[in-house]
Amino acid sequence: MDKELSSIHYDKYLQLNKILDAQKLRSVDFNKPAHDEMLFIIVHQVYELWFKEIIHDLNSVKKLFTPKVVEEKNIGIAISRLDRISKIQKILVDQIDIIETITPLDFLEFRNYLLPASGFQSFQFRLLEVSLGLKRTNRISFTQCAYSGVFSQEEQEILEGLEKGDSMFDLVEKWLERIPFLNFDPSKDSEESFDFVSEYKKSVDNMLQSESNAIDNADYISAQEKQLRLKILGETNTYFSSIFNETAHEKKVKDGELKLSYKATMSALLINLYRDEPILRQPYMFLQKLIDIDELLTSWRNRHAQMVLRTLGKKIGTGGSSGYDYLKSTADKHRIFYDLHNISTLLIPRSELPVLPVKLKEKLNFNFSN
Amino acid sequence: MDKELSSIHYDKYLQLNKILDAQKLRSVDFNKPAHDEMLFIIVHQVYELWFKEIIHDLNSVKKLFTPKVVEEKNIGIAISRLDRISKIQKILVDQIDIIETITPLDFLEFRNYLLPASGFQSFQFRLLEVSLGLKRTNRISFTQCAYSGVFSQEEQEILEGLEKGDSMFDLVEKWLERIPFLNFDPSKDSEESFDFVSEYKKSVDNMLQSESNAIDNADYISAQEKQLRLKILGETNTYFSSIFNETAHEKKVKDGELKLSYKATMSALLINLYRDEPILRQPYMFLQKLIDIDELLTSWRNRHAQMVLRTLGKKIGTGGSSGYDYLKSTADKHRIFYDLHNISTLLIPRSELPVLPVKLKEKLNFNFSN
Amino acid sequence: MDKELSSIHYDKYLQLNKILDAQKLRSVDFNKPAHDEMLFIIVHQVYELWFKEIIHDLNSVKKLFTPKVVEEKNIGIAISRLDRISKIQKILVDQIDIIETITPLDFLEFRNYLLPASGFQSFQFRLLEVSLGLKRTNRISFTQCAYSGVFSQEEQEILEGLEKGDSMFDLVEKWLERIPFLNFDPSKDSEESFDFVSEYKKSVDNMLQSESNAIDNADYISAQEKQLRLKILGETNTYFSSIFNETAHEKKVKDGELKLSYKATMSALLINLYRDEPILRQPYMFLQKLIDIDELLTSWRNRHAQMVLRTLGKKIGTGGSSGYDYLKSTADKHRIFYDLHNISTLLIPRSELPVLPVKLKEKLNFNFSN
Amino acid sequence: MDKELSSIHYDKYLQLNKILDAQKLRSVDFNKPAHDEMLFIIVHQVYELWFKEIIHDLNSVKKLFTPKVVEEKNIGIAISRLDRISKIQKILVDQIDIIETITPLDFLEFRNYLLPASGFQSFQFRLLEVSLGLKRTNRISFTQCAYSGVFSQEEQEILEGLEKGDSMFDLVEKWLERIPFLNFDPSKDSEESFDFVSEYKKSVDNMLQSESNAIDNADYISAQEKQLRLKILGETNTYFSSIFNETAHEKKVKDGELKLSYKATMSALLINLYRDEPILRQPYMFLQKLIDIDELLTSWRNRHAQMVLRTLGKKIGTGGSSGYDYLKSTADKHRIFYDLHNISTLLIPRSELPVLPVKLKEKLNFNFSN
Repeated sequence: MDKELSSIHYDKYLQLNKILDAQKLRSVDFNKPAHDEMLFIIVHQVYELWFKEIIHDLNSVKKLFTPKVVEEKNIGIAISRLDRISKIQKILVDQIDIIETITPLDFLEFRNYLLPASGFQSFQFRLLEVSLGLKRTNRISFTQCAYSGVFSQEEQEILEGLEKGDSMFDLVEKWLERIPFLNFDPSKDSEESFDFVSEYKKSVDNMLQSESNAIDNADYISAQEKQLRLKILGETNTYFSSIFNETAHEKKVKDGELKLSYKATMSALLINLYRDEPILRQPYMFLQKLIDIDELLTSWRNRHAQMVLRTLGKKIGTGGSSGYDYLKSTADKHRIFYDLHNISTLLIPRSELPVLPVKLKEKLNFNFSN
Repeated sequence: MDKELSSIHYDKYLQLNKILDAQKLRSVDFNKPAHDEMLFIIVHQVYELWFKEIIHDLNSVKKLFTPKVVEEKNIGIAISRLDRISKIQKILVDQIDIIETITPLDFLEFRNYLLPASGFQSFQFRLLEVSLGLKRTNRISFTQCAYSGVFSQEEQEILEGLEKGDSMFDLVEKWLERIPFLNFDPSKDSEESFDFVSEYKKSVDNMLQSESNAIDNADYISAQEKQLRLKILGETNTYFSSIFNETAHEKKVKDGELKLSYKATMSALLINLYRDEPILRQPYMFLQKLIDIDELLTSWRNRHAQMVLRTLGKKIGTGGSSGYDYLKSTADKHRIFYDLHNISTLLIPRSELPVLPVKLKEKLNFNFSN
Repeated sequence: MDKELSSIHYDKYLQLNKILDAQKLRSVDFNKPAHDEMLFIIVHQVYELWFKEIIHDLNSVKKLFTPKVVEEKNIGIAISRLDRISKIQKILVDQIDIIETITPLDFLEFRNYLLPASGFQSFQFRLLEVSLGLKRTNRISFTQCAYSGVFSQEEQEILEGLEKGDSMFDLVEKWLERIPFLNFDPSKDSEESFDFVSEYKKSVDNMLQSESNAIDNADYISAQEKQLRLKILGETNTYFSSIFNETAHEKKVKDGELKLSYKATMSALLINLYRDEPILRQPYMFLQKLIDIDELLTSWRNRHAQMVLRTLGKKIGTGGSSGYDYLKSTADKHRIFYDLHNISTLLIPRSELPVLPVKLKEKLNFNFSN
Repeated sequence: MDKELSSIHYDKYLQLNKILDAQKLRSVDFNKPAHDEMLFIIVHQVYELWFKEIIHDLNSVKKLFTPKVVEEKNIGIAISRLDRISKIQKILVDQIDIIETITPLDFLEFRNYLLPASGFQSFQFRLLEVSLGLKRTNRISFTQCAYSGVFSQEEQEILEGLEKGDSMFDLVEKWLERIPFLNFDPSKDSEESFDFVSEYKKSVDNMLQSESNAIDNADYISAQEKQLRLKILGETNTYFSSIFNETAHEKKVKDGELKLSYKATMSALLINLYRDEPILRQPYMFLQKLIDIDELLTSWRNRHAQMVLRTLGKKIGTGGSSGYDYLKSTADKHRIFYDLHNISTLLIPRSELPVLPVKLKEKLNFNFSN
């Protein structure tokens, strides 16, 4: 029997009997029905459903990036899935507008019944953060207890296991470190030898020197502006000199100032600079999508914090958190791919880019020829 | 014992055991797991959750408008609830972006397993349409069968019962008909007597006459433009003369050309014209919100149709519907408050408005005096 | 001649000759055309056009609130105009997505040509901030110089003049202080005498006492949770006791901890608590709109900061600002109506609200009776 | 002198003297200032600025696709630029919310002064439509006159010239026709010979036959459902058989039923089916972006029509158009890349796809090997 043809009805397929029967108002239990509690429940259920989907997509991307060699076509698939995550995130941010229709006064009608339930008890949200790469040590704690203290023994073990394994951040870092473009073996064929870091260093030095000369000679701009331009140049200088010092970089990683290893950083930089080469196009888009996700997570945290401020004022949250201030601080500090954002600091204009050897350029193109 | 203080945990409060355990992929059942089916299920569950909330809010508004006298403060509450519905609708439209991340090719991986399940089987969506005021006779049918044929006996009875009772449209119409501002008894006190329709008619006549004169005398504009202006004026004339004919209006209602009764239409017009009077401010906003909801429902239908076109092309839907064309046609035809949109046709500039008698103006203001 | 009928063409009406002829690419001037500079110019011009509209609406609202007695109907108009501002602000936030299509690498193609032009030189944005109520002393400075140092003498004078006059914040504060509901003269008629603050204080005391008793007697909740609930109650207590201390409040205003005067705060609280009374409905919505605008300004600052981080990394801005960190810090600190957000802290559930005397309730209703 | 370092100020760079001095209210001219006319002017100016940017991006993409051989890296650039256009379009749709804050009654305050100016006189919008590929013959006319009748002689000539040249549609069609993957020469090497259309035909036949058998043998599904499935299958059959008939296809093109040539359609189909092959990834995304733009243009037309209905009711537009009905009809009929949407009709599941010869697969991959 071709089971595939067995019929299914919409309601049953979506298990609406469960989904639509899971809204039990505490205020009704206590004989003080509060109309808005329905929305409060439903909006949180919607969030959890979306979290499930995000985790589903994220896990699949992690799987694609686990093998030593990531297949080309899988980068494309990863991009689509991350793009989906970012589209969901946009909705997560926008639908805070819906929550805000519960006015502070209306919220007070049922707030007391919810204690001590709190968004801090969302296991899926923690799963998501840990899967992306948020480490226990980088978390801002909102109480004295560990963030996982609110979870069951079993859930805590899952979180710990996940923290020990490779997060999305770890997998991306390893993949970047493995990417073979940083150094094309110069011994074999001088026509395709290319040491990215040293070539790039030369370009940077030239660029900074000529900019410095130009400013020195520009008598027609005001002293104030000259100073400004030199200040900018000086800071640029500092960033760049630090970038060529692998030891210093790794020390910063150890100190928690940076997260991404030196080699992975150099690869990410190369991808950004030569993204127009066909073979780097998809890797570039992949890195962009990671930044998008990070940015949208930050937007969500900011927007969430504002909503809490508006609803609770300075009142303490149902979970006992200090609410606004805590949430606000995580927006910045719980960022995962901060170092990818920072690649921008290291970019130089296309006109200053080291030219790739012809043979190398060919290798970065498709095999097909017309 | 003060039961109110009993504790509750986030997971249990939201019944996440049900919510997060309701995603069973048919493609997995058939041993051909399709990654994107998870999203397909989740997005539909999210829609159903939002439908539940919309119905919850809509029912509460219907309740507020059921008594003969609608309390002032309830108009304010109704506005807030309708505003919430419109904010949810915005998200319903926007999250179609998420569905579209399922590409047509990926959809084919599991489409066959879903037959004949279809969005047409969403009971809640029908509930919503009927609650707003969509009548069986105004529905565009997509098959030969009645739209309710896909529902269980019990569900059909609920829909039929609902159709027989007062819809949101009916309640609004009755409320508009009852509003006491159309005719202030002229016998008692000439200082506050005011017959809106006849005063408004005078204003319209004056306005049209003086516009017509102006165009006739305007020798400096081109013949072509003169013609345009006269054409516009002519059409305006037609609309206005029809509006003063109650019998003709009610005939149109019978023929299905219009839905809102003559008296209700006049009240809606009065509210729109004198919306700046304190007592009419909230009724005006209430009518606006109804239009918002109608408009967003149309937006949703349009966007939904586009998504179906993109995913299925001209393929027939899983429910056997002709897909795009059907959905497209409902966008316009399933509008509920079309006559409220149309009030715009009847508006005249503030400068032409009949002046309200002083005593009447006072009555339309607050009791409080500084 | 009835000049009103003179014709006008779309192009001329919109002065498109000016609008569409104002994009001169610096990169083209320097013979290194950068495709994306067009977008860079246009998006900033669009921002400036929207700023002009926001200022136009804001000024009109300020005008409506300038007279000693604000007409009822003008509150309605003010609400519409503020609502429009908030809708524009949403677009201002969303269109940052468009700017982000200029990738960091592409921005480098023309960045150098723009120095030292910078968004900090937007005169209209400063006008807007000052009109809302941002004071020089509350500004976070990004350089040693005054924020107005980048403007012409004339512009500086305008800004200074504006700072001296009444800002939107000042006008709202004065209006709140004048609102006559805080104290209904008890001498005349005991049936309508009502001293809001003292009645409210009694309610709060009762509420806190009974909550405290309940927690003490709740043997069935864990010690940990008891502690949490008592902590929350304690903090609530602190807030409330401070609120009844006018002297302490005014001291905080002097110290810059609060901005809104004691009397205005009490009025805002009353409006929030009794917003369902017809006469308070519009004032309530008006206050909500102010909060919306503040919130959206914060969203814009946050989003703007993120965009700068992504484009520039840690590079210094074209205007010499430290970019991301500066922008980020203003999101929180440049909030204008923070004290209105904070009203939430002072709300108590409707069930605990002091009941209004019948005669007072009537006075808060409409004059009209059926 | 290094001119690049010459300074520029924000105001001057953006030519704000022009931009912010281009709002002249007609209602002010006629001594009846209408507050909302400012918004009316500004929102239209903003639209025109965005149109300018869209045309700037679109023209650059057309240029990239004009040469016989489109460079790989240019496909990537084209994707970015089209993506930017779609992001702008989203804002164009969303900001209709702002226009709708001009209520019908407020619009009447200045509507008369605008005659006969109208959005139909936007030259840039026509440029945009024609550049995309809208032909005069496919336009729905709203008056008896040619659509270009409202433009100056010079503008008309530009539009006509543009219509004669290659539109975006034409360039895409030609590019698709040139793509060399449809037929790999079978004479040379059987290991890489591959005739896409015939292989695809075989797959389709197999698929339909086995589906038909399965339905015939499925005794456990209801007769009604069997009928439904056979109906779906039948329609699928019809589509597919038409697709293999080149002559029939070209006749449909002649008759205006289809627009895209047979060969281009086959290429687009191939790209969609084998989009996971590295070399087809970018072409696939490029086609997706074209569909996005078309879809957003449709969304804009739909939303625009709704706004007109709300503001004018059945009143005739300032330009003399029938307003709502006309705008509504263009949403569907003025679509450019309808045939790309329709590719979905022709897709078959991945599991049924003809397998590519190994050598061919290699050719579709990158040259680089680890």
